[in-house]
Amino acid sequence: MDFRTEFKPLTIQPEQIEGRSFEMITEEIGEHPFTAEQYPIVQRIIHASADFELGKSVLFHPDAIQAGIRSIRSGKKVVADVQMIQSGANKARIEKYGGEIKVYISDPDVVQEAKRLNTTRAIISMRKAVKEAEGGIYAIGNAPTALLELIRLIKEGEAKPDLVIGLPVGFVSAAESKEELAKLDIPFITNIGRKGGSTVTVAALNAISILADRV
Amino acid sequence: MDFRTEFKPLTIQPEQIEGRSFEMITEEIGEHPFTAEQYPIVQRIIHASADFELGKSVLFHPDAIQAGIRSIRSGKKVVADVQMIQSGANKARIEKYGGEIKVYISDPDVVQEAKRLNTTRAIISMRKAVKEAEGGIYAIGNAPTALLELIRLIKEGEAKPDLVIGLPVGFVSAAESKEELAKLDIPFITNIGRKGGSTVTVAALNAISILADRV
Repeated sequence: MDFRTEFKPLTIQPEQIEGRSFEMITEEIGEHPFTAEQYPIVQRIIHASADFELGKSVLFHPDAIQAGIRSIRSGKKVVADVQMIQSGANKARIEKYGGEIKVYISDPDVVQEAKRLNTTRAIISMRKAVKEAEGGIYAIGNAPTALLELIRLIKEGEAKPDLVIGLPVGFVSAAESKEELAKLDIPFITNIGRKGGSTVTVAALNAISILADRV
Repeated sequence: MDFRTEFKPLTIQPEQIEGRSFEMITEEIGEHPFTAEQYPIVQRIIHASADFELGKSVLFHPDAIQAGIRSIRSGKKVVADVQMIQSGANKARIEKYGGEIKVYISDPDVVQEAKRLNTTRAIISMRKAVKEAEGGIYAIGNAPTALLELIRLIKEGEAKPDLVIGLPVGFVSAAESKEELAKLDIPFITNIGRKGGSTVTVAALNAISILADRV
């Protein structure tokens, strides 16, 4: 491939863009309730959304970060509700420890079973996930029904995730599903309200894997 | 695979979730500047972000929607800056007309050239895209440097996209890149400010392909 277009220097170098963004977030965030351990995760969520309101709405179970770090270091699977999270997340850092990111929502058996039961593929994908991925991190950024089903499976003792990153977005059941998650005494990262989504879920997951990969 | 978990009916059926969300958006949006043609795109952007402020910040070039519809119907390529957009977008509707979604950012020649020039892979991916994908829709949701480079290539006559969906998110250059796009007299969909991202870019692209697929 021939890139004949003239090179025009950037005013800021590529490796500086992220650092400068993080500085701007710290300059602008003002008062916040987060610990020094939690702040880097919130910072990445704000970086991915440019939304301080969303960042400040994040809630952490006290064991969340350490549990997430241990899970990645022990090479457990990460389960995501949608492909976008698998695409966006840094896979190299997870695979380095023997883990991988799994998404079950498009599996033919999941699609078929969801049709048969007239329910969402997201729900059935969680039922499959808890059978195939023991423990591990669950990263849910899109489907409130996936998070509600995972909560049910946890309550019934069928699922025991190391960490639930539950940040689905939306108008129907998203806020409610996150309220339910925040009531559980298990490691979780979630937020208050309708906002969320795949990009901020990726940001939280990447933040955890960066911490896990730091000596 | 055996799904032995008992089926628990949803209070709302899967096919109703999206419809109910759209109703809630219309109930809550209040006054807005969008035409009847533009509103469905904004509605999908709000659906994907749960953010009315972001939705109301969207700007349309007057030819944007019709140009996007024509592009998809004529089977032109869609170029995205990042994999997450390729993962999240409805590919079936684009492929039905002969098109496909291309992402060049991880191509080995792009990675190598970016290193050599000490610039971003996003920039080099746009240079490759304009050589490989004639016309078509450019959907940029992550990298302001990709959008700035595409604008430069348009100004220099090296790129002539059918439609630019430019919704990158971030603190460094994102708002500025979108301001530059909005000055061009070419079909664009963009927004004012730092907010944006892959999920809302997917929402806008899906909204256009839905319109294209409607008889």
